[in-house]
Amino acid sequence: METTRITPSRLAKRAHYDAETIHSILDEALFCTVSYVADRQPMAIPTAFARKEGQLYIHGSVGSHFIRQIEQGGPVCISVMLCDGLVLAKSAFHHSVNYRSVVIFSEARKVADEAEKMDALALITDHLVPDRWADLRPTTESELRKTTVLAFSLAEASAKVRTGGPNDDPEDASLPTWSGVVPMQTVRLTPIPREGEEDIPLPAYLVQ
Amino acid sequence: METTRITPSRLAKRAHYDAETIHSILDEALFCTVSYVADRQPMAIPTAFARKEGQLYIHGSVGSHFIRQIEQGGPVCISVMLCDGLVLAKSAFHHSVNYRSVVIFSEARKVADEAEKMDALALITDHLVPDRWADLRPTTESELRKTTVLAFSLAEASAKVRTGGPNDDPEDASLPTWSGVVPMQTVRLTPIPREGEEDIPLPAYLVQ
Repeated sequence: METTRITPSRLAKRAHYDAETIHSILDEALFCTVSYVADRQPMAIPTAFARKEGQLYIHGSVGSHFIRQIEQGGPVCISVMLCDGLVLAKSAFHHSVNYRSVVIFSEARKVADEAEKMDALALITDHLVPDRWADLRPTTESELRKTTVLAFSLAEASAKVRTGGPNDDPEDASLPTWSGVVPMQTVRLTPIPREGEEDIPLPAYLVQ
Repeated sequence: METTRITPSRLAKRAHYDAETIHSILDEALFCTVSYVADRQPMAIPTAFARKEGQLYIHGSVGSHFIRQIEQGGPVCISVMLCDGLVLAKSAFHHSVNYRSVVIFSEARKVADEAEKMDALALITDHLVPDRWADLRPTTESELRKTTVLAFSLAEASAKVRTGGPNDDPEDASLPTWSGVVPMQTVRLTPIPREGEEDIPLPAYLVQ
């Protein structure tokens, strides 16, 4: 849904409002930044999350100051950014970044239903490490009680995407400066087992 | 400087206030998220930046809505996060993330001095690609006029750092579940030259 506050004032050609683009960025990113206002002061917290259909879930300790500040509602801005590459132009001015970002305006809904809460925790776990949840002992009632899960609607979300090479001024075209793109990627390295448990086989979902 | 709003309510052992820790995280991270408040609404924008001594610089077009909203001052929260690894425990509850994050509370100072402004642009360029600035044609007066540079003091900044393996409940110790850390890293891949300019040699600072 396009609204005034998610319509960019500049570079509107980079903006996307379709669920497919927004969901694919959210599903690839592992962390989001949750921004909110406390006593007129903006606060920003990076945290793990997961998406299901048109909702984004985060979780935290029931004792977390951050969680307690937003669980009552109030406007929240959630942002996510993936960097795909550094764009090197022939002038500093035209240097840029290939990125995919999402901004969401929403309010927290505290998840009360136990089944939805458990489902959200499974989603958050599997978002970081696919197939991990099914490999774990069941989460206990006590653990569930110590955890708050918050849901945010994606109804007011937008994505921005930049791709491609540098856009230089025509008068710089003949400069002998190297220009192009340095691709960036976030990678998972070889898993390191807990000390003393090197003989426990690596599960298939962690084999790269 | 430690103040009430940068003292965490939980996991205080993960908090750091020394310049060395804070600066090293800022120098490694390529992007920050700038959060501010506009009409009671929290807004968050990911952007490039650079640090010099106790200051952080960002830049943007003079026409940027975001830049215009914060250049007049008003409270800003800047956050940075590096993910070093996913921490897989024997229970979902104790899953965690090894990360290094910084949160800064500050207000924008619009950089008016041309020398400081040019210096900040060089720093931002070289933060993304070390040694790039010296390889570029000089930035023009016109380009400088089209760009706003904002500085933020790091006086009220804090870092949070988690390292190490999972912290499991003693009663889960005997579970045969694989546990440990999946290290994460952001890497630069082979630079892709601009089409038709494959014969321009890759500068030394881009050779990996």
